[in-house]
Amino acid sequence: MIMDRLYKLSKERGPLCVGLDTRTDYFPDYLSNEKIGLEEKLFTFNKKIIDETIDLAACYKVQIACYEAYGLEGLKAYSRTLKYIRENDAVVIADIKRGDISSTGEMYAKGHFEGDFEADLITLNPYMGVDSISPYYEYMKKGKGAFVLLKTSNESSKDFQDIKDAKDTDMYINVAKKIDEWGSGFVGESGYSMIGAVVGLTNPEDFGKIKKASPNTFYLIPGYGAQGGSAEEIRELFKDDICGVINSSRGIIKAHKGKCETEDFAKEARKALIEMKEDILSCLR
Amino acid sequence: MIMDRLYKLSKERGPLCVGLDTRTDYFPDYLSNEKIGLEEKLFTFNKKIIDETIDLAACYKVQIACYEAYGLEGLKAYSRTLKYIRENDAVVIADIKRGDISSTGEMYAKGHFEGDFEADLITLNPYMGVDSISPYYEYMKKGKGAFVLLKTSNESSKDFQDIKDAKDTDMYINVAKKIDEWGSGFVGESGYSMIGAVVGLTNPEDFGKIKKASPNTFYLIPGYGAQGGSAEEIRELFKDDICGVINSSRGIIKAHKGKCETEDFAKEARKALIEMKEDILSCLR
Repeated sequence: MIMDRLYKLSKERGPLCVGLDTRTDYFPDYLSNEKIGLEEKLFTFNKKIIDETIDLAACYKVQIACYEAYGLEGLKAYSRTLKYIRENDAVVIADIKRGDISSTGEMYAKGHFEGDFEADLITLNPYMGVDSISPYYEYMKKGKGAFVLLKTSNESSKDFQDIKDAKDTDMYINVAKKIDEWGSGFVGESGYSMIGAVVGLTNPEDFGKIKKASPNTFYLIPGYGAQGGSAEEIRELFKDDICGVINSSRGIIKAHKGKCETEDFAKEARKALIEMKEDILSCLR
Repeated sequence: MIMDRLYKLSKERGPLCVGLDTRTDYFPDYLSNEKIGLEEKLFTFNKKIIDETIDLAACYKVQIACYEAYGLEGLKAYSRTLKYIRENDAVVIADIKRGDISSTGEMYAKGHFEGDFEADLITLNPYMGVDSISPYYEYMKKGKGAFVLLKTSNESSKDFQDIKDAKDTDMYINVAKKIDEWGSGFVGESGYSMIGAVVGLTNPEDFGKIKKASPNTFYLIPGYGAQGGSAEEIRELFKDDICGVINSSRGIIKAHKGKCETEDFAKEARKALIEMKEDILSCLR
């Protein structure tokens, strides 16, 4: 089952996720100037980063918005990127944050767990409740998985996620409990369920509460690097065991900017990832 | 501004939205058997429905999940459908329900307000707060708009949307207030802002509270027909003025099933839409 595999890879390689939030302004100069189409440029950029990081990362997270932004060309590159990661026997998380009624959820499930856009794991939005998560269950039985937004890393996550209910429970804790409940039918041998959760590293003080409310949940943790989170915050989080993967996007894939604009640009991504890995592993010792 | 235009069209043609949640199992037999590719079949299905309904509908809502389900071929048909609706001077809502941090929101905004997937209005998910809505503001200044999920029509909308806060206010009312606040900078001559809200017809008893909390908000109202809502529920809603558009998807685009499987299939969609229109207009008299 996918979450067991991700847990195992996180133990072996470190709990690191490389975020391919690729944008044309991240291209090194040599690539911007190549006489090839946009699809080819986007895919080439990703392929070079993947080739340089595949032995170090537990997984890749591909942010679909960055490809939708470039229309059909962008989505062709998105499709090729997902295929390339899976062909290289690595785990790919499609960061799609979908959420809709069940008949629509069935279509999203088909779209992102089969065919051109097949991923191992996807991200989902819980606002519409269990109807918007259950359409994916049949794929979870076949080994796919999801990360549901719980407490996000952005400043305005407080707008609704921090509202306390009549019993003084934060909305995000109510969401955490539901995620753990939904995942209870899909717990693997690692003890983690196929339904993980997205929890931002920028809210470490809340993580204790979250872990208590969702003990069987593996976390996808954005917020390291460009978004402001630091490894010290990870020490407390991982004190018992690795319970999630830490994502960095801009910190890795923009590492070459101002340093290397040639075909070797992805070596800077590798260096940045090694630095991140040492930073994080030092907290696990 | 787009919401003024939609309000005007709703007055002229009736507050009707045709939902193009197209699936291959909705195809009439003649189309299933045609020797053309999937992109062409999906687009042909939509084009025939649009041609038969364009004088009756205030707008079209295209559910992107139904096209993502068919991968790149599906998204080519999605792109052509949006272009066709806009070329015919009708309003198109892209039902994408996106929601992400601001740097990602900017990419979604570019993707769905420009280029291959350009729409007039899009749907958005509020779970991540104002950061996930504000990236679209610059496009609203240029005439684009959005509908933010407020109270959805599915059974499990109650999971989180109905949780009462410490002051006994429902989550969805807190969302309604924020939507009205966010839209306050974008109010058009109709009195409605460019930031509308999605409110399901299956919760009519809540609509009074919602309207009070979001007086400048125009609504996109799913739940009519296949999802169980009825026109009687609309009477109360529209008693002062038309304050939204009522969407029907399956009730219109599946109307031919069991009746007509030929090239004339879309005439059944027209009949179903006329019936829906009479049903709704009878409540406005």
